[in-house]
Amino acid sequence: MSERAYVRGTLESYLDKLASGEPEPGGGSVSALVGALGAALVTMVTNLTLGKEKYAEVQDDMVEIQAESERLRRRLEELVTLDAVAYGKVATAMKLPRDDENQKEARRRVLQTALRGAAEVPLEVAETALAVAKLSLPTVEKGNINGVSDGGVAVLLADVAAQAAALNVKTNLAWIEDEAFGRDAWTRVEAVLSETARLRDIVMAITYSKI
Amino acid sequence: MSERAYVRGTLESYLDKLASGEPEPGGGSVSALVGALGAALVTMVTNLTLGKEKYAEVQDDMVEIQAESERLRRRLEELVTLDAVAYGKVATAMKLPRDDENQKEARRRVLQTALRGAAEVPLEVAETALAVAKLSLPTVEKGNINGVSDGGVAVLLADVAAQAAALNVKTNLAWIEDEAFGRDAWTRVEAVLSETARLRDIVMAITYSKI
Repeated sequence: MSERAYVRGTLESYLDKLASGEPEPGGGSVSALVGALGAALVTMVTNLTLGKEKYAEVQDDMVEIQAESERLRRRLEELVTLDAVAYGKVATAMKLPRDDENQKEARRRVLQTALRGAAEVPLEVAETALAVAKLSLPTVEKGNINGVSDGGVAVLLADVAAQAAALNVKTNLAWIEDEAFGRDAWTRVEAVLSETARLRDIVMAITYSKI
Repeated sequence: MSERAYVRGTLESYLDKLASGEPEPGGGSVSALVGALGAALVTMVTNLTLGKEKYAEVQDDMVEIQAESERLRRRLEELVTLDAVAYGKVATAMKLPRDDENQKEARRRVLQTALRGAAEVPLEVAETALAVAKLSLPTVEKGNINGVSDGGVAVLLADVAAQAAALNVKTNLAWIEDEAFGRDAWTRVEAVLSETARLRDIVMAITYSKI
């Protein structure tokens, strides 16, 4: 599956697949999509600001923010599909035979590797969503005032993408035997969650003060 | 524009249009999309539960929840486009001539009607998102345990859809002269926000206790 397979499909087909009982896409893929929507809104505010005389002093900042928000968006767009790919490997591993001890041990090793892969995708979603949240702050501070509510929506989406990704990291960690991996992953998630929550509160306060 | 125009397009074209400096789609349309993603995840959990012997006692509940979550999803899918349509009417009204007092008064009346329409769409998004949040509770309480994190993501998305819609209601209210309309609309928004926040906390606590 190409890493842009899901974003090349229609919104209604993605929503229908999500609603179905099929294992993928699920909450992990959605968290990446929501993060990508947040990144797109950051880019929108930069586009509303670039080339405007009134915002002459912040043109260089907006160019930099846009380069970064578009890079983050492209990666999150890929993660919409890559989460499904990683989960597919777990589903495949679960179906391996376990008729004797050798098979059981082989299945265990393949499954553990697949589970780590499936935890790493939402971990990357969470950390990328934090980067989007960071960019939303200068967009509401310095960007076109007509886009301030879009900058506010961007931080809401980045924060919830991180929270949704955290749930998916946790679900995978429950089955991962490598405790050091689990501790490290969850420490990274907690750092992301506290920082996105802090940014959400700051950016929302600025947004509400300007509309 | 057909009310399903946006959801019939690809994810990448929606994201590209969102990121552009074009006025639509913006944060209002995204709030409807995020609500639809939440509704789809509620449906997913019902699909993971229906027909499973282990969940025999909750089959009737799941049928009811699914009928309602699919109805809400279809409406939110339409609102993804209808927000853009309503905003388009505001943009058109803004461009009306105002060379003399008659033109100014005609423009004012058309614009005020368009602004009320543009506030009513995110208001409906917020109230529909609250209905999604309400459905997420029985899905994490009684639904297939394998879908519990998806039920948790559903409430996160419903809550953030309501918060994002609220920002867009507020942005429109700033320009609406009818104070009674504004007070009534904001009272409804505040009722939705406090209820979605309450449901989010309850559903997330249940979800984290089960994964």
